[in-house]
Amino acid sequence: MTAERDDSFHVFDTTLRDGAQREGINLTVADKLSIARHLDDFGVGFIEGGWPGANPRDTEFFARAATELELRNATLVAFGATRRAGAKAADDPQVRALLDSGAPVITLVAKSHDRHVELALRTTLEENLAMVRDTVSHLVAQGRRVFVDCEHFFDGHRANPAYALAVVKAAHEAGASVVVLCDTNGGMLPAQVHEVTARVIEETGARIGIHAQDDTGCAVANTLAAVDAGATHVQCTANGYGERVGNANLFPVTAALELKHDRRVLPEGALGEMTRISHAIAEIVNLPSATHQPYVGVSAFAHKAGLHASAIKVDPDLYQHIDPERVGNTMRMLVSDMAGRASIELKGKELGIDLGDDREVVSRVVERVKERELKGYTYEAADASFALLLRDEIRGAADRPLRFFRIESWRAIIEDRPDGSHANEATVKLWAKGERTVATAEGNGPVNALDRALRVALERIYPQLGGFALVDYRVRILEGRSGTDSTTRVLITTTDGAAEWSTVGVADNVIAASWQALDDAYTYGLLRAGLEPEE
Amino acid sequence: MTAERDDSFHVFDTTLRDGAQREGINLTVADKLSIARHLDDFGVGFIEGGWPGANPRDTEFFARAATELELRNATLVAFGATRRAGAKAADDPQVRALLDSGAPVITLVAKSHDRHVELALRTTLEENLAMVRDTVSHLVAQGRRVFVDCEHFFDGHRANPAYALAVVKAAHEAGASVVVLCDTNGGMLPAQVHEVTARVIEETGARIGIHAQDDTGCAVANTLAAVDAGATHVQCTANGYGERVGNANLFPVTAALELKHDRRVLPEGALGEMTRISHAIAEIVNLPSATHQPYVGVSAFAHKAGLHASAIKVDPDLYQHIDPERVGNTMRMLVSDMAGRASIELKGKELGIDLGDDREVVSRVVERVKERELKGYTYEAADASFALLLRDEIRGAADRPLRFFRIESWRAIIEDRPDGSHANEATVKLWAKGERTVATAEGNGPVNALDRALRVALERIYPQLGGFALVDYRVRILEGRSGTDSTTRVLITTTDGAAEWSTVGVADNVIAASWQALDDAYTYGLLRAGLEPEE
Repeated sequence: MTAERDDSFHVFDTTLRDGAQREGINLTVADKLSIARHLDDFGVGFIEGGWPGANPRDTEFFARAATELELRNATLVAFGATRRAGAKAADDPQVRALLDSGAPVITLVAKSHDRHVELALRTTLEENLAMVRDTVSHLVAQGRRVFVDCEHFFDGHRANPAYALAVVKAAHEAGASVVVLCDTNGGMLPAQVHEVTARVIEETGARIGIHAQDDTGCAVANTLAAVDAGATHVQCTANGYGERVGNANLFPVTAALELKHDRRVLPEGALGEMTRISHAIAEIVNLPSATHQPYVGVSAFAHKAGLHASAIKVDPDLYQHIDPERVGNTMRMLVSDMAGRASIELKGKELGIDLGDDREVVSRVVERVKERELKGYTYEAADASFALLLRDEIRGAADRPLRFFRIESWRAIIEDRPDGSHANEATVKLWAKGERTVATAEGNGPVNALDRALRVALERIYPQLGGFALVDYRVRILEGRSGTDSTTRVLITTTDGAAEWSTVGVADNVIAASWQALDDAYTYGLLRAGLEPEE
Repeated sequence: MTAERDDSFHVFDTTLRDGAQREGINLTVADKLSIARHLDDFGVGFIEGGWPGANPRDTEFFARAATELELRNATLVAFGATRRAGAKAADDPQVRALLDSGAPVITLVAKSHDRHVELALRTTLEENLAMVRDTVSHLVAQGRRVFVDCEHFFDGHRANPAYALAVVKAAHEAGASVVVLCDTNGGMLPAQVHEVTARVIEETGARIGIHAQDDTGCAVANTLAAVDAGATHVQCTANGYGERVGNANLFPVTAALELKHDRRVLPEGALGEMTRISHAIAEIVNLPSATHQPYVGVSAFAHKAGLHASAIKVDPDLYQHIDPERVGNTMRMLVSDMAGRASIELKGKELGIDLGDDREVVSRVVERVKERELKGYTYEAADASFALLLRDEIRGAADRPLRFFRIESWRAIIEDRPDGSHANEATVKLWAKGERTVATAEGNGPVNALDRALRVALERIYPQLGGFALVDYRVRILEGRSGTDSTTRVLITTTDGAAEWSTVGVADNVIAASWQALDDAYTYGLLRAGLEPEE
């Protein structure tokens, strides 16, 4: 689960633990595994997975990670607390659960603010120091690497600097390899963080990390200020997710270190994956990707055309702080089809569809995509639907799309019975190869019933359908402020065992939108299987 | 239109000019007047209204502002450019339009980066200096106060420091009362901003302002770094609106100055209006209010972790960097499976449900929440469903929930017709006040049809339902890797005009999950209306 890499600077991600504290985020174990894979792709050095023992989900995560998670770059970290007051670390079940998680690195949260020791832990200042020392040395003796998060460090340092420093020293001397100064309440500003971090390094000699919350809107700057002062371990979360306002955002922090400080903190080539990974993680947590997020937002390099257009043409670097391609993003000119044309040509190439020099087809596709995206379609995440659109435009017959079957009508019935059970039944009437078929099927939901009815109707004619499976199904309600009258977008991912493809449907209701996406999914799959569609 | 106040520090707002460059914002003149009134209430010293002459909307804004806008705190500012190359300022129609606007203060944008002078202005470095001098002195001679925005200053200072400083000196010597250093491309970090600002102040003696864009995620910190270095004029926008990633956000900048630097930059009492004004401006520009915005977001003082809740009960100040009431916000407790007993007790209090000292009830609720969240429910975003759960547990009858109606069964039919249109029909059979009702309704989707059928069935018995409206509807597919077999979670927000409440439903299909959330939404709304449910 670990990887050999330079230990001199740590990019430590806590999306799965502290990031999950964000209001509205509720991760399943499968979500957590999937996010961990993206973070590993991005090249963070450490992934804090959760608090094993504190809740069943986190315990399950570590159990499944041991067999299902193959990390190339990152080391998995378990989070937990120092032992209870008045007990031995070796006898504490919470500490035991950390060892049982199998994680090679353990982050221990320790109190470093005197009032919190008294009020929250209800113990003495001396006992708290003993708790830090005992727990760290016990875990180190068991062969684990230990980082210590000093909770409320900056507030604690203001209230009682000698005690806050004593906690850092206790952790350091007991064998913690990094002591992390946490601005838990997020009230700090960069100048304070710089001053305090420099002082701690000078007075303790410990290796120092920084964990900043964004309550003043300065978490990124606070993190960089600590690095300027000598910290060599930064704790961040993807897209800045976290409790209250959030945590220091992994993406602008690593981009600043790489591009502004010229410091290599990520593996070669990882920076260019930043935009894709930010958006993928937003999809998994089911939050809209923040359009105005630094570096990775869709608006981050969007320029209003006009005044500066000619100068941008001459030298784009005059109007952007970095080349957006360095972080996998692109410059967009608003109110201009230039960016559109280029990306559509590129996209066609990527899908193996040669648009040649046919500028007219490209123009028609640009128009069609704009018009459809205005209605809520998104082709970025639905390659297969885009490929179908492209083929139909090349044929010059967008109004008569190529299909393997023509739907006459369909119907779904969802019934809730007095005993609380549900019946979901769907009927499909369609034409294929000159033949009319009517099929009915049941499913555990209306979309599942429609999917099955479609297969029943078509499998005799197209046996290839038997090898297709739906592997992902996502629903997003657009314009959510109009209640259930909203427009619904459905994204479906289908596989034939060898490849996966994604399709999109948009309609006034979730069933009709799902149906469109299913229709595209099967059409594209049959094309992939080498079949010739009907004209 | 002006107000007498201390001139030693300027809070300069450019929401109406630079903020309007944000992708997706399109302001009418009425919008601009309305935003200006909110900004004046908040107590900014200057409101930059637009560029008179550059477009008809901005010209009209200044004309209407002269009669319709009564400012108590702020002075209105017109924005424009230095005169054309090779002409006289007095003969330049663009400069004339600035005077015609009647604004007592004028901000002139000037080039300070040598390459921009050559490529964008296509003139000599010397002529650009003359343009700055002539335009400033002409406007000052006409009795206007002049601020000069040095565009691309920080990039220009890096490329050619002597020239960038020469532009500042030219503006200062010609009579500009503030020279503003602009990080137009937004690529700077706080340490650089501090260093350059300090140098400019030392070398020119000019009064210096700061204008920061947020492309590195450091606009607030960059603004504060400039103030630390001696700047006494900060340019900001409400909610950080602006081109690309946005501008320095007015709210965290002023909150930091007032609450962290202990510097009075707003009128007495204005800080407490911050949250209300931030949300009001978001309404006017028709963007959702950023829930995770520092200080003013609805999540800015929301606590989730069980760890913290026990100590929050003892001393809330230990867990928040400021008292949220100082900025007009409130603390909220979120309920989730990470939460412990203390957060459930606090949440009950917030909802007006006294759990007293009944430790047994609290334990049952903790267990119930954990068990339900494992199934996919989420209570932190569904206060009303949580309140219903709490009431039922207090009654000791979780299996016989309090309801105003009992559903016998329901059915939804979605039909796609040969012409491509959809029919959505729902039938509901229920009991209320001893009476059985069967109702059928159509809708633009199955959930909408169910909602309407429910209203048809109940409105005669509970006319209060007529005042309820669904304002938000969100769907999340859990464990999305199993295709359309996934579990579905629906969150619904309902309003009765006075308040909003959120409910949750989880089921194997989206219709059944929506139905649960609707059922809770109406039950909670009727409880709010003061009605007594049936046992």
